[in-house]
Amino acid sequence: MTLRIAVFGENRHEKVDATVQEIYPEGMHTVIAEGLRATLAADGVDAEVRIALLDDIEETLSEEALAQTDVLTWWGHMAHGDVPDAVSERVVRRVQEGMGLIPLHSAHYSKPFRALMGTTCNLLWRNEGEEERVWTVNGSHPIARGVPHPIVIPQQEMYGEMFDIPAPDELVFVSSFAGGEVFRSGAAFRRGKGKIFYFSPGDQEYPVYHQAEIQRVLANAVVWARPEDRPSAPVKIANAPRDWFRGDEAERVL
Amino acid sequence: MTLRIAVFGENRHEKVDATVQEIYPEGMHTVIAEGLRATLAADGVDAEVRIALLDDIEETLSEEALAQTDVLTWWGHMAHGDVPDAVSERVVRRVQEGMGLIPLHSAHYSKPFRALMGTTCNLLWRNEGEEERVWTVNGSHPIARGVPHPIVIPQQEMYGEMFDIPAPDELVFVSSFAGGEVFRSGAAFRRGKGKIFYFSPGDQEYPVYHQAEIQRVLANAVVWARPEDRPSAPVKIANAPRDWFRGDEAERVL
Amino acid sequence: MTLRIAVFGENRHEKVDATVQEIYPEGMHTVIAEGLRATLAADGVDAEVRIALLDDIEETLSEEALAQTDVLTWWGHMAHGDVPDAVSERVVRRVQEGMGLIPLHSAHYSKPFRALMGTTCNLLWRNEGEEERVWTVNGSHPIARGVPHPIVIPQQEMYGEMFDIPAPDELVFVSSFAGGEVFRSGAAFRRGKGKIFYFSPGDQEYPVYHQAEIQRVLANAVVWARPEDRPSAPVKIANAPRDWFRGDEAERVL
Amino acid sequence: MTLRIAVFGENRHEKVDATVQEIYPEGMHTVIAEGLRATLAADGVDAEVRIALLDDIEETLSEEALAQTDVLTWWGHMAHGDVPDAVSERVVRRVQEGMGLIPLHSAHYSKPFRALMGTTCNLLWRNEGEEERVWTVNGSHPIARGVPHPIVIPQQEMYGEMFDIPAPDELVFVSSFAGGEVFRSGAAFRRGKGKIFYFSPGDQEYPVYHQAEIQRVLANAVVWARPEDRPSAPVKIANAPRDWFRGDEAERVL
Repeated sequence: MTLRIAVFGENRHEKVDATVQEIYPEGMHTVIAEGLRATLAADGVDAEVRIALLDDIEETLSEEALAQTDVLTWWGHMAHGDVPDAVSERVVRRVQEGMGLIPLHSAHYSKPFRALMGTTCNLLWRNEGEEERVWTVNGSHPIARGVPHPIVIPQQEMYGEMFDIPAPDELVFVSSFAGGEVFRSGAAFRRGKGKIFYFSPGDQEYPVYHQAEIQRVLANAVVWARPEDRPSAPVKIANAPRDWFRGDEAERVL
Repeated sequence: MTLRIAVFGENRHEKVDATVQEIYPEGMHTVIAEGLRATLAADGVDAEVRIALLDDIEETLSEEALAQTDVLTWWGHMAHGDVPDAVSERVVRRVQEGMGLIPLHSAHYSKPFRALMGTTCNLLWRNEGEEERVWTVNGSHPIARGVPHPIVIPQQEMYGEMFDIPAPDELVFVSSFAGGEVFRSGAAFRRGKGKIFYFSPGDQEYPVYHQAEIQRVLANAVVWARPEDRPSAPVKIANAPRDWFRGDEAERVL
Repeated sequence: MTLRIAVFGENRHEKVDATVQEIYPEGMHTVIAEGLRATLAADGVDAEVRIALLDDIEETLSEEALAQTDVLTWWGHMAHGDVPDAVSERVVRRVQEGMGLIPLHSAHYSKPFRALMGTTCNLLWRNEGEEERVWTVNGSHPIARGVPHPIVIPQQEMYGEMFDIPAPDELVFVSSFAGGEVFRSGAAFRRGKGKIFYFSPGDQEYPVYHQAEIQRVLANAVVWARPEDRPSAPVKIANAPRDWFRGDEAERVL
Repeated sequence: MTLRIAVFGENRHEKVDATVQEIYPEGMHTVIAEGLRATLAADGVDAEVRIALLDDIEETLSEEALAQTDVLTWWGHMAHGDVPDAVSERVVRRVQEGMGLIPLHSAHYSKPFRALMGTTCNLLWRNEGEEERVWTVNGSHPIARGVPHPIVIPQQEMYGEMFDIPAPDELVFVSSFAGGEVFRSGAAFRRGKGKIFYFSPGDQEYPVYHQAEIQRVLANAVVWARPEDRPSAPVKIANAPRDWFRGDEAERVL
């Protein structure tokens, strides 16, 4: 089945910041989407990648659009507050129903991620364009497949611990920065039937999403986060206790 | 230091339901509070236990009151919607800052617990007064200290899996019911600096909080959930990278 | 790539116990292997299933044979002590290198499982042919795909908590028994690059492995446990610290 | 109750290496033991600290001695192979019964730690006396109490990821090194009823155990790892299923 991906981009820095325009002339979302398309195609994964922007969020992340989305990547930073609460709430609900979510970098502060975590998602930061190294700590995890050890990002904003998230269900990457800090930069969570993979590279001021290794991680992550395909497995239990499996219930699967 | 406990009781069923009045003539909160006082006193724990009710929630769970609370137990059921959002939000914030939270039974659907979990907290249920057995699956956990294996609760509402919570940081108890279901009945989480212990017994229609074994679990849980006492550990790092430890920061501890 | 599965069967009860002979005239391993073949074929998974027995263990689980094995299922009970230490040690080593391991039922006490867990793997038990119900507690886990909720096993040996294992990385199933006990019956672990799924059904005295739902779980488990395919991702880091990436190291991936 | 601590020291480098002799003229174990005594006394913890050396290991870690030990710290490096298998096995068994274990630095390769983990415990390393920074990633964990963020160790051997351990039950510290690597330097595990805290500082060539912050971590760790005190909670269940609670069983607690 086709893997249906939506790439959400806030697309605000791109409008006002010359540095960002130079790195991402057609927007960060375009480079993220192109990276996914190319990497998944090379892997032989049947995938469709569409764009959703803050400017068209009511349509592109409508109830109907989300119902047709398997995995949503999310980059936002300066305009988290402009995401309508109702949109965030339906993204959260869709994750609980099985949609994958890949919050990127400053999306640690996005509304849906914070709502799914139940924590402040605070962290240390310092933006001086330091080298980041992304180390794998879980070598058999599918998101680490084919990923160099470490990924070297020549320039990045520093994100440092304490990162106020729940203990991840699976910790995949830990980063170091030239200034000496560390960060849990790749962290996987399950909420309801949905999977979430937070990945902390990359800041808008550096060409992080142009790097092939980063595109590899994103492609691995969307495949990992796709909903489980759950064929119907009707249950008929003659001796069910107190008959709670009855009527429609009898046909229900998880 | 004195352990400052607040016992929140919705106190609604007690006003309208003769069965509940008979079991808990002075309210469920009174029995929960008395159980804590007696068990902690027997353990030699210096503790203060106060009551907070839905009727006085703006005062008893005010910002100031919560700032003086180390651990909050929470029982609610028919009136979750009557808890003001602002109260729920400050409870959540206090948990993130370190306050312990012990949601009981139907508080799986309470506003603060759902906000801290990020999931629906749905579960199966059936109220036919069946026997519940609470089995310890983590024998060295402090909340299981001195707890019989199993605790037998003669009559209870059944709560069954799937229980839609994040994977607990520590699973302490799993229950079976006479009807054949299972339930993760004792589940521990950390959110920010605060600890949360969800414990699924007991329904208002049965005298569950009168049982000494249940009082033992609750006393263990509040002691476990108390905030860490964190003496100041000033940090002076001459060679700190980019001087991020400076000014007040230099004195900060986690 | 073909998924290469080895089904290890102790094949001792089948030789001495008329009840077992009647249920499994060609051995338990034959039914397990046939169930895997049929279910995986229906799923379109390219798989080869071979048999390994205690009587030929030095050959069928030799260093060379294990090197050609992606996932090993293991059923043993009365003759754990007859498994040579050297065989157990190489199974453990292969798991650490990436091979999947699926210990079944009484294999909780098998040498390789105990060595990989680091615990006693003790549990409660009682063999009176009681009904077991296997409940899913992690609805989005691939091993729970298409599995009824619950699986009902008409007759089984009871396995009960405390089950002395490390906290599983992922808890998938919890069982109840007619006698009132509970058991973490489906538990997933990672050790090194290998994945382990312990599944507690079924005892040799009951036709558990003939059940389609059980065959579904086993088929899901071997697919889940297959080693990650890790294409080479050469690393060349000009500015590597202290040049630890040099020579052959520069080509190394995890 | 008195917390009974044993400090195991291999005490080999101290005999042959002038650098180590200068830093630890009376052995590393002496400094570790003195640090524990002083820090615990300042905390008001009633504790006894005794020394156990490789040279007297059959006596100091005998069955009887271990039965009187609540928490064992373990430093070893060049002579792991000289620890008798029988001693390692009884240490493992005592941990499963409830004794705490604190493996230090190169004890990642010690026999009991590897047996308890079930993994190779491999890691990257490079000994060039680089600065290590130990960052807290779990701010409410008792082992992080009063610990600066970060601890700065002026000179250390680098230990880097991949560190081949099971996913820790609780991750407390992550280190960075001047050369750019990261390491999960403080990792907590439960095995049976016992708790284990692996802490990777410090190498014998640097005065790591003389640092007050490191002594603080060790003191926190032994208090955290002490066995739960489990008062008897006899179980009498008239309606126990199939009477499995009978005879002595009826009195059993976990």
